[in-house]
Amino acid sequence: MDERIPCGLDEDVVPSRRLPDHVGETVTVQGAVHRIRDVGGLAFVLVRDREDVLQAVTESAEGLEEGSWVRITGEVVAEPRAPRGVDLRIGEIEVVAAPVEPLPLVINKRALSVGLNEKLNRRPITLRHPRERAIFRIQAALAEGFRRFMRAEGFTEIQAPKIVSVGAEGGANLFAFEYFGKPAFLAQSPQLYKQFMVGVYERVFTIGPVFRAEKHNTSRHLNEYVSLDFEMGFIRDHRDVMAMECALMGSMLAFVSAECEGEIILLEAQIPEVGGGMPAVKLAVAAEAAEKALGREVSRDDLDPEAEEAVSRWALQEFGSEFLFLTHYPEAKRPFYVKDAPDDPGTTLSFDLLLRGLEVTTGTQRINLYDEQVAKIERMGLDVAEFEDFLMLHKHGVPPHGGLAIGLERLTMKLLGLDNVREAALFPRDVDRLTP
Amino acid sequence: MDERIPCGLDEDVVPSRRLPDHVGETVTVQGAVHRIRDVGGLAFVLVRDREDVLQAVTESAEGLEEGSWVRITGEVVAEPRAPRGVDLRIGEIEVVAAPVEPLPLVINKRALSVGLNEKLNRRPITLRHPRERAIFRIQAALAEGFRRFMRAEGFTEIQAPKIVSVGAEGGANLFAFEYFGKPAFLAQSPQLYKQFMVGVYERVFTIGPVFRAEKHNTSRHLNEYVSLDFEMGFIRDHRDVMAMECALMGSMLAFVSAECEGEIILLEAQIPEVGGGMPAVKLAVAAEAAEKALGREVSRDDLDPEAEEAVSRWALQEFGSEFLFLTHYPEAKRPFYVKDAPDDPGTTLSFDLLLRGLEVTTGTQRINLYDEQVAKIERMGLDVAEFEDFLMLHKHGVPPHGGLAIGLERLTMKLLGLDNVREAALFPRDVDRLTP
Repeated sequence: MDERIPCGLDEDVVPSRRLPDHVGETVTVQGAVHRIRDVGGLAFVLVRDREDVLQAVTESAEGLEEGSWVRITGEVVAEPRAPRGVDLRIGEIEVVAAPVEPLPLVINKRALSVGLNEKLNRRPITLRHPRERAIFRIQAALAEGFRRFMRAEGFTEIQAPKIVSVGAEGGANLFAFEYFGKPAFLAQSPQLYKQFMVGVYERVFTIGPVFRAEKHNTSRHLNEYVSLDFEMGFIRDHRDVMAMECALMGSMLAFVSAECEGEIILLEAQIPEVGGGMPAVKLAVAAEAAEKALGREVSRDDLDPEAEEAVSRWALQEFGSEFLFLTHYPEAKRPFYVKDAPDDPGTTLSFDLLLRGLEVTTGTQRINLYDEQVAKIERMGLDVAEFEDFLMLHKHGVPPHGGLAIGLERLTMKLLGLDNVREAALFPRDVDRLTP
Repeated sequence: MDERIPCGLDEDVVPSRRLPDHVGETVTVQGAVHRIRDVGGLAFVLVRDREDVLQAVTESAEGLEEGSWVRITGEVVAEPRAPRGVDLRIGEIEVVAAPVEPLPLVINKRALSVGLNEKLNRRPITLRHPRERAIFRIQAALAEGFRRFMRAEGFTEIQAPKIVSVGAEGGANLFAFEYFGKPAFLAQSPQLYKQFMVGVYERVFTIGPVFRAEKHNTSRHLNEYVSLDFEMGFIRDHRDVMAMECALMGSMLAFVSAECEGEIILLEAQIPEVGGGMPAVKLAVAAEAAEKALGREVSRDDLDPEAEEAVSRWALQEFGSEFLFLTHYPEAKRPFYVKDAPDDPGTTLSFDLLLRGLEVTTGTQRINLYDEQVAKIERMGLDVAEFEDFLMLHKHGVPPHGGLAIGLERLTMKLLGLDNVREAALFPRDVDRLTP
């Protein structure tokens, strides 16, 4: 044996947020030199470490360069004016890596003063700005909060394939490619796999990328995004799914608030209240409210962006809620696996959840009975033979079930008041953008 | 408002593993009728619920069908011969959904007696077998255990794009497609994005699908699989990454052992010991040991499957470990971002982790210096201009860093002693399989 690798690192590094626990001690920190402020006889060196920004102090920072990566050993001293109430009095600095070229833009001022396109072109660098970092720490907490709630409610995590032979929404907006001589597509949803897995674990969830070949190039569309999905059996109707989402959202937001206090303050984010429930209205009712507010006709098929915003404002005023469920979308606008509403012909047991003027969730009760599913596939003009695999589920029995999908980037965007969903994607993909 | 959706369901269902807490109480359970055993005047109804299988008892199960989905209310009674020491005395049964056709195969006997191809063709149904369910409960626990350790060690979760313009390993084995008129590929690794994010958060992890257009059709290859990835800054060399993996693996396995006690027993799985560390040898040394064991020549470029197995047996005997790190893979066999070994010309600061005869991890120290990275790209005959985005990382400074990728299906396979990696993928994709 050349050597025995030990389990774990012999680490002595203190991350910035734990510095206050070490006042009076000599510790080591590591990170990038974020900013140097020389005030004559005293130099403040802000260090961007894995968690946050900390303040180190020395007599002179001569020779030290912004953008360098350093390891600093020094004494932690109480200092009310410093972040978190502590300074690090620099003893030794080791420069571990230095930039070859200075940054082409400023990442150590309060705002990142650069246009969206430039920001995205230089994403590996612009993400180093504390505000950008904060956005994606919050996004990570949203994903973690989602999983924690799901696990606590008895859902099992699954991995759904992304290379598929048939679309979950009937074939539109799919990226196609050749898979060893056969036509294949990128999954636009884990839908059919989630339904299969209801027959296996009754309650399942999954987080993963989904792909939409939509040509929309708007502030709310991405061609690849992260979908938070769950599916549950033994529901009475779609409202059980909505009730689960209401509890989920409350739990996720509570988790984010607890995990990301610093980030929320930095971004001046207003985390919405879930309270004891969320209002729900039928799409047709919402469309009417939007018509009144906007003084023009509004489609009952699906709300246009302006109408969504008007409806959200209306809901805030009427019900005091920033969240609003819209239900009963028309049959023609929902996929083949969606259950029709027995009490409202032409509509489905479906819902969207709006947050601050934007749809962040789509969900439905699915069809669980074989004959009903076959009939609906035929009624929609699709080929039943293509759904042979899918229909195994219904043929061999599955309980009434439903589920939903939450767009992680859209949720991040609306929570943080960002203008464009691209701001909430680390490396966004749109019609014009495939890099970096 | 049509109605106010409450936060959460008013649920009264007790999952099977919590039944022992309710002895003497009347409770409701729900699931599928797994098996009915009529023993004359008494019928045992095994119910497969979201967690496990429970035993319900009644005088007659006439009219009840295996495969139906039911909700049963009854009294929990201590019964030493029943699973978990309790029976449910059936009061009421509600059949919520019934199969249209009986199953084409038997899923309620100890073994699922069906060939691999048939098993995979009927995956939505065969996954309902308790042993199949157990495999993927363990897989879910592995993913969760990975994330728990990573978060505790200060790693931030990231989402890496799967649609990319350039391959992380130089262009081979990529699935290609047209992305709005431009050539695009499916990411074979989140590699470059992980490296970018070291400059942002210093320590990052991600779990997601990766895609390999390899034509190998072996028991150890999938064309789409789930990769557990991490990347960390401020390392001394690749051994820091290995030490982190050693602690990670110990933590993941401990988590699985605690979460999935029942599944481990059911599958008779032997969870390997990590103990105080893992042995590491250079690839060349391992190849020599394999040659001795096999009595034939073994390539020093990369071990063939038989050699990997021989080396693992040798390590178990020599070092008492089912895990073995192999280090210092040849330059020519590792991608352009891998750091060359200063002490062993022609090799790299790279490693694989073998478990029970199979590579389950690949990792390396990466190049962090700009000039070194440019020189290596040129030396490998690649076009530096194509890596302009990637080189932003090095140009503007990044600390020495490294990371690894663990194949989730392979790890599941080896932990559970499965013969084929397809057994450890819910819906596997290989050269011949694109459905279900």
